[in-house]
Amino acid sequence: MNDLNAFVQPQRERILNELFTLLKIPSISTDPSHNADCRRAAHWAADHLKALGCPRVELLASETHPVVWAEGPDAPGKPTVLVYGHYDVQPADPLDLWDSPPFEPTVRDGNLYARGATDDKGQVFSVIKAFEAVSRGGRPPINARFLIEGQEESGSKVLFDLLEREPERVNADAVLVSDMPYFAPGWPSVEAGLRGLCAAEITVRVLKGDLHSGLYGGAAPNAHETLVHLLAKLKTPDGKIHIPGVYQAVKRPSAAERAAWKKLPFNERAFQRDEVGSRALTGLKPYSVLERIWALPTFEIHGIVGGFTGQGTKTVIPAVATAKVTLRLVPNQKTAVVARQLSAAVKKLAPKWADVSLKIMHGADPVLVDISAPPFKLIDQAFREVEGRGVVPTRSGGSIPIVPALGKRGAPVVLAGIGLPDDRLHAPNEKIGVEQVFKGIRVFGRFFELMGGA
Amino acid sequence: MNDLNAFVQPQRERILNELFTLLKIPSISTDPSHNADCRRAAHWAADHLKALGCPRVELLASETHPVVWAEGPDAPGKPTVLVYGHYDVQPADPLDLWDSPPFEPTVRDGNLYARGATDDKGQVFSVIKAFEAVSRGGRPPINARFLIEGQEESGSKVLFDLLEREPERVNADAVLVSDMPYFAPGWPSVEAGLRGLCAAEITVRVLKGDLHSGLYGGAAPNAHETLVHLLAKLKTPDGKIHIPGVYQAVKRPSAAERAAWKKLPFNERAFQRDEVGSRALTGLKPYSVLERIWALPTFEIHGIVGGFTGQGTKTVIPAVATAKVTLRLVPNQKTAVVARQLSAAVKKLAPKWADVSLKIMHGADPVLVDISAPPFKLIDQAFREVEGRGVVPTRSGGSIPIVPALGKRGAPVVLAGIGLPDDRLHAPNEKIGVEQVFKGIRVFGRFFELMGGA
Repeated sequence: MNDLNAFVQPQRERILNELFTLLKIPSISTDPSHNADCRRAAHWAADHLKALGCPRVELLASETHPVVWAEGPDAPGKPTVLVYGHYDVQPADPLDLWDSPPFEPTVRDGNLYARGATDDKGQVFSVIKAFEAVSRGGRPPINARFLIEGQEESGSKVLFDLLEREPERVNADAVLVSDMPYFAPGWPSVEAGLRGLCAAEITVRVLKGDLHSGLYGGAAPNAHETLVHLLAKLKTPDGKIHIPGVYQAVKRPSAAERAAWKKLPFNERAFQRDEVGSRALTGLKPYSVLERIWALPTFEIHGIVGGFTGQGTKTVIPAVATAKVTLRLVPNQKTAVVARQLSAAVKKLAPKWADVSLKIMHGADPVLVDISAPPFKLIDQAFREVEGRGVVPTRSGGSIPIVPALGKRGAPVVLAGIGLPDDRLHAPNEKIGVEQVFKGIRVFGRFFELMGGA
Repeated sequence: MNDLNAFVQPQRERILNELFTLLKIPSISTDPSHNADCRRAAHWAADHLKALGCPRVELLASETHPVVWAEGPDAPGKPTVLVYGHYDVQPADPLDLWDSPPFEPTVRDGNLYARGATDDKGQVFSVIKAFEAVSRGGRPPINARFLIEGQEESGSKVLFDLLEREPERVNADAVLVSDMPYFAPGWPSVEAGLRGLCAAEITVRVLKGDLHSGLYGGAAPNAHETLVHLLAKLKTPDGKIHIPGVYQAVKRPSAAERAAWKKLPFNERAFQRDEVGSRALTGLKPYSVLERIWALPTFEIHGIVGGFTGQGTKTVIPAVATAKVTLRLVPNQKTAVVARQLSAAVKKLAPKWADVSLKIMHGADPVLVDISAPPFKLIDQAFREVEGRGVVPTRSGGSIPIVPALGKRGAPVVLAGIGLPDDRLHAPNEKIGVEQVFKGIRVFGRFFELMGGA
C-alpha cells in the first residue's frame, strides 16, 4: 500500500504525459476513416505493455481494429487475472460544444478533458499503471493477462470472432474491467449487471426522388413525416416501448437487490437537475429511477438522416429518411430476439405508401454477475484501504458487449471502475478526475497484491 | 412570328451558351456562403440587359442579393410590360443524387440539366431573349421593364422593402412571370392562383447537454423523441393539419373553377407513378388531387437537425433537436396569422420537460388572379400560334412571394411558364427542355408583339 503511494507520487507528471499520448489518438472505431488511428492506439498499448516487461504481447485478428493480447511475467503458483479494456472511443461531434478540442487533452480544475478520458482510455490506463506499480523487478504478485480491444463502441465483432476461435485466450481466475463510474464521488461500486444493446437504422423510402413541396405537397407522401409517425408509435411519451414481445423476457431484479439500491446515496431531484440536466425525468412511472436506468429496456432515437438539414430553408419533400436508434436490453433479453421483434414491429407499422427497412448495426447481450465470489471481497478491501469506503452493489445501464464472453469460462468478472457520474462519456467535454486516475492505480495495484495473497 | 423563328434558328448555340454562363453561377440565396455568387448572377443579368440596349439598368437595394431593375428603349404610345423573374436558386444537395454536377450545365436527350434550369434562370432567360428578338434596331413593340431579384427562394425581403419605398418601380399595364410549368407537355397553362408559404424551425431542448444513452436512458428525456411526438401531433397521417384555426380562412375554389380542373388532361394514376414516383398518394381524401396540391394548405417536414447523423452509431441522448418545416398557404390565409397559430400550437404541445421554440424563417402570402383581363387573351393567342394550343386555367401549389405586391397597383399578373411538370425543380437533376426554352422565346416575343398591337 505504501509502496503504491511511493510509486505514484514522484511520477505523476510522467504518468499523465503517457496518458496524454494515448488520448491524443482519435481512435473512433465506428468511423472507417479512423481505422488507421485505431491501429495506432493498438500499437501504443502493445508497445507500452512490452516496455513494462510483458514477455508475450500480440496484435491479433484484424487489419483495422487489432485486439491487443498480452501476458505478464510468470508468477508461479499465483492466480491469473485477466484485465479487459478498450482503446477505441466514441465519435466526438458535435465539436463546437467542446470547451477544448476532444483530442487535445487538457487539465482544468483537477479534471482531464478529452474524448476517451473516462471511456475507457483513462481507466484501462490506470489498470496498466497499477500492474507496472506492482511488478517492479519483474516479479508481479499475479499472472496478468491483458485483453485490450478496439471495437467496444461498435460491437466487438473482431474480439467475438477471436474468442470463438481461441477461447483459451481469456482463461483466468478473475476478470477485472475498469470501464465504469463510482456510484457517487467517494462511493465506489461493483456492478452486478450491465444492459445490452441493439443498434439499428430504420429507413423509410416513399418517393423515387425528392420533390418540390409547393408542386406536390398535399398529395405526395413525405419520408420524414412517415418516419415520425412510425417512431411515435414505437415508444409512447410514457416511456413504454411498443414492440410486441419486447418486455416478455425481462427479469425484474430481486427484492433484495432493489432493497440494496434503496440504501444508495441517491437523490432523485439532484440527479435530475445536476446530472441529467433536465426540467423533469421521463420513463415508466411505476419503477424507481434506478430500476429504469439499470434494469428496464429503452428505445432511443439518436438522430434522423435525410431531407434538408443545412443553413436556411429548402422546401423539399424528402424521399428517404433514416432514424438511428438503439434499444438497451436487460436480463434475460437476447439481442438477436429483440432485433427480430424490432424488425417485425417496424414492418407492421409501415403505411402502404412506404418501403420501410431495418438494418441491424451491432449488438450486445445484457449481463448479470454473481457478486458473491471471492474476488469481489478483495476489490471491496482494496477500495476500503485506498478510498476509505468499500464498494456498493449497483448495475450499469451501459453495455460492454464482450463481458458475457469473458465470463463464459467461469471466471468472476469484477466490474469496478474509477470514473465519476459526471464524466460525460459519449458526450462533449468528456473527462476523468486526475486524482481518480492515481487512486485507480493504487486500488487496482492493491487488488493485484490481494489476489496474490499479499 | 416568322421573324421570331428567324431570330432563334440560326443562333441556337449562342443562346444556349449564354444560358450556360448564367446556370454555372451557384447563386443559392438561402446560404450566406453564396452571397458573392448571388451578386455575380445579378451582375450577369444587369450586364446582359445593358448589352441588349436597355438604357436604364440599376442594381438596387442590397449588398448581398441586389435587385436588377431595367427599362427598355422608349416605345412611345405603347403599353408597359413588367417582366419579373429571379436569378437565385435552391440549394443543390444532396449532391450525390445528381447525374451531372448541379452547376455544370449538361444537355442530355434534349434536356438541359442544372440547378436553376427551370426555376427560374432558364425561364426568365427565355423572356429576356424574347425581348431581344422583338427589339432589333432598338424599337421594341412595348415599353419593357425588368425586375429580376435574388431572394425568391428565401422570401424576397429585399424586394419587398424596395417596393415599399418605391412602388412606382412596378408601374405597368401588365406583369409577365415565367416561373412555372405547362400543365402537361403540349398543354401550356395560365395560373389563377399561387399558394403562399410559412417557413419555420421548431426547436426542442430537453437537456443541458447530450447524455450517454446507457447511463441515462430510461429516465432522461430525449429531444428527438420529444420532437417526433410533437410533429406527429401537428399533422396526422390522413393529411389533416392540427394547428387550431389553420383552416378557418381557407376559401374553397368556386364550383366553376373546380369544374374547369376536371376537364384538364389529368391522370391520377400516371401522376402518382410517373411524377410523384410513389406507391400511393396521401392527403385529405374528400378533395381531388388537384385541389389538394393547389388549393389546400400543407404542413411538410424538410429535415431534422441534431443528435448524431454521421457514419456508424453513437449512443447519445440528444439534448436538442430542430425540425425544418413549412406550411403552404391558400387564399385567404395570411402568413402572419398562420405563423402565430403555428407558434401557439407548438407551445401548447410542449411537454413539461421540454423548452420548445419556434423561429419563423420567411413567408409568402397566397395569390388569386382574375384571369379574365385582356393580357390573358393575348398570352393565350401567343401560345396558340407557337404551341398549337392555348392556355388552360390552373393554379400552382408553389409560392412566389412577391407576386401579390406586383399586382397591387392593378396590373394583371400573367403567370405563364414554359417548364414541364417533370422538371424536378428544388430536387436533384433539375432540368428544362431545350426546345421549351426556344419555344418560350417565340411565345413571349409574340406576346410582346401582341401587347404592342401587332
